[in-house]
Amino acid sequence: MLNIKGKINKDYKQQQQLFLGIDGGGSKCKAILMDQNNTILGTGISGPGNPVYGSEIAKTSIVESASLALTEALLNSEISQELRLNDICVGIGLAGVNLPHVYDEMIKWQSPFKSIYLTTDIHIACLGAHEGHDGAVLISGTGTCGLSNVKNNSKIIGGHGFPQGDKGSGAWYGLNAVQAVLLSFDEMAPPTTISKYMCQVLKASTAEEIISKVAGKPASFFAHLANTVFSALEDKDEVAVSIIDEGASYISEMARLLLKTTPPRISFIGGLAEWIIPYLDQDIQKQLSPSLFPPEAGAVFYARHQTASLK
Amino acid sequence: MLNIKGKINKDYKQQQQLFLGIDGGGSKCKAILMDQNNTILGTGISGPGNPVYGSEIAKTSIVESASLALTEALLNSEISQELRLNDICVGIGLAGVNLPHVYDEMIKWQSPFKSIYLTTDIHIACLGAHEGHDGAVLISGTGTCGLSNVKNNSKIIGGHGFPQGDKGSGAWYGLNAVQAVLLSFDEMAPPTTISKYMCQVLKASTAEEIISKVAGKPASFFAHLANTVFSALEDKDEVAVSIIDEGASYISEMARLLLKTTPPRISFIGGLAEWIIPYLDQDIQKQLSPSLFPPEAGAVFYARHQTASLK
Repeated sequence: MLNIKGKINKDYKQQQQLFLGIDGGGSKCKAILMDQNNTILGTGISGPGNPVYGSEIAKTSIVESASLALTEALLNSEISQELRLNDICVGIGLAGVNLPHVYDEMIKWQSPFKSIYLTTDIHIACLGAHEGHDGAVLISGTGTCGLSNVKNNSKIIGGHGFPQGDKGSGAWYGLNAVQAVLLSFDEMAPPTTISKYMCQVLKASTAEEIISKVAGKPASFFAHLANTVFSALEDKDEVAVSIIDEGASYISEMARLLLKTTPPRISFIGGLAEWIIPYLDQDIQKQLSPSLFPPEAGAVFYARHQTASLK
Repeated sequence: MLNIKGKINKDYKQQQQLFLGIDGGGSKCKAILMDQNNTILGTGISGPGNPVYGSEIAKTSIVESASLALTEALLNSEISQELRLNDICVGIGLAGVNLPHVYDEMIKWQSPFKSIYLTTDIHIACLGAHEGHDGAVLISGTGTCGLSNVKNNSKIIGGHGFPQGDKGSGAWYGLNAVQAVLLSFDEMAPPTTISKYMCQVLKASTAEEIISKVAGKPASFFAHLANTVFSALEDKDEVAVSIIDEGASYISEMARLLLKTTPPRISFIGGLAEWIIPYLDQDIQKQLSPSLFPPEAGAVFYARHQTASLK
């Protein structure tokens, strides 16, 4: 579905045809520069882009990823070498902007771009997955969330952040893994081979060392520990199976609620999706469709739609 | 058991008879000034004393609570008005000093006291509960922990911090309450009257408002939300009963493991103890003995014992 870089034959001196899309998540921020034909001219990846845990860090990550995408695009001789960030309209999807104070903080930003169009990370993910059309998405990355967009009605589930929400997310799996390991060290729960993988990843050998490595850490840190649970599956570890099933049941239930809104398509995206899909209820697995474009491309579709509706 | 202030007839010019005891927990720091007969000469309470979440804040809280206790003692005419913090030996029990880097940070402190004797908050709680003698304690306050001290052998369970551990603690109950409320707002879990109490306490009416109030908050904040679960018991709320039972089962299991070390006494202390006791297993409830002295007095017993063993 994606057009290939290099097959570029548009006149990019009409710079208004170009849009940047930004996907700012808990652990990284992705940028994409696209033309009207959905040809990808450049991409960039930087650090955390979730403004709930620091709006200044998020702004820095957005500009950094956008600059990387623009730099890559400028290596292409078809692009005007005069193109700068302040020539470009940018669609930005961010975790946390459903919270009014976070939205206000970001919308007041004197950004280096020509203009910004701000929406949630889940909204751009849904637009991307269905090429800008109606549909529903389930996301499990650092956090979890579900959204359906059908005939201008949207329904959102989850996206509540860590540790108070985000069941079935990378952060949730990582935290549940740490909890299971610490309980088993105390002989308060069954032994689990998750402990072996946790000690390897954290370079720790005692409960005290594990605690000192994880204490006070953010969602993105716990998300990096999620693979310890999935690794333990290879040992047929019952504790791991139980944790994975609990998270997957939550995602299945979220899908079931979204399907009641009769979306034309439903996709499951995010870093954990491929790991969790085999554990979803069978009927849910069968209804999943592949995502057509990444969330950052959905941010381009959003900005394009917003500027079109302003004309 | 406690001697009453006012019945003081000792010569307090022998200031070495006086000891300060400090109990530094996640939400507050308590100090007590006692003489050799366990007469309480003064007490003080200040802010958070858990160095895991900031050693400078903990040090400030320790000095503040100690100063308050000394000021109260100086109002008593039997006390030498020349008495200052740097005349006094201090026993300090702190959450988190089982972690080597936290212990190192605190033991290097150039404190304003004559000398300090540092141990864990759970250790002084156990010494306090059993008047300095052998025994076991279960604690549920901001965090949870269990310790037995029998014939110079100690066994510790839990005390792993929030959110990776501390099941059955105030912070754990508060977080589980928030999680249940957010799930029910999404219709992903049964409705619960915890929502009503949560909205009252947080002055919130939507999931978004609740999230913006709790996002990124420390254990002590979540601990203040624990009472929403216990309030919902009055409505015979099944979600609340299920959360309370899960936390209480953990405490019962912790007691069972500690009782294997055959402690002469076992006590259940901390702000949540009186709420949880009715939900512990019957056989555990029957074996509980009242705590004889508070943890800060246990810190005095610890310092007194350490100075005696140095002589």
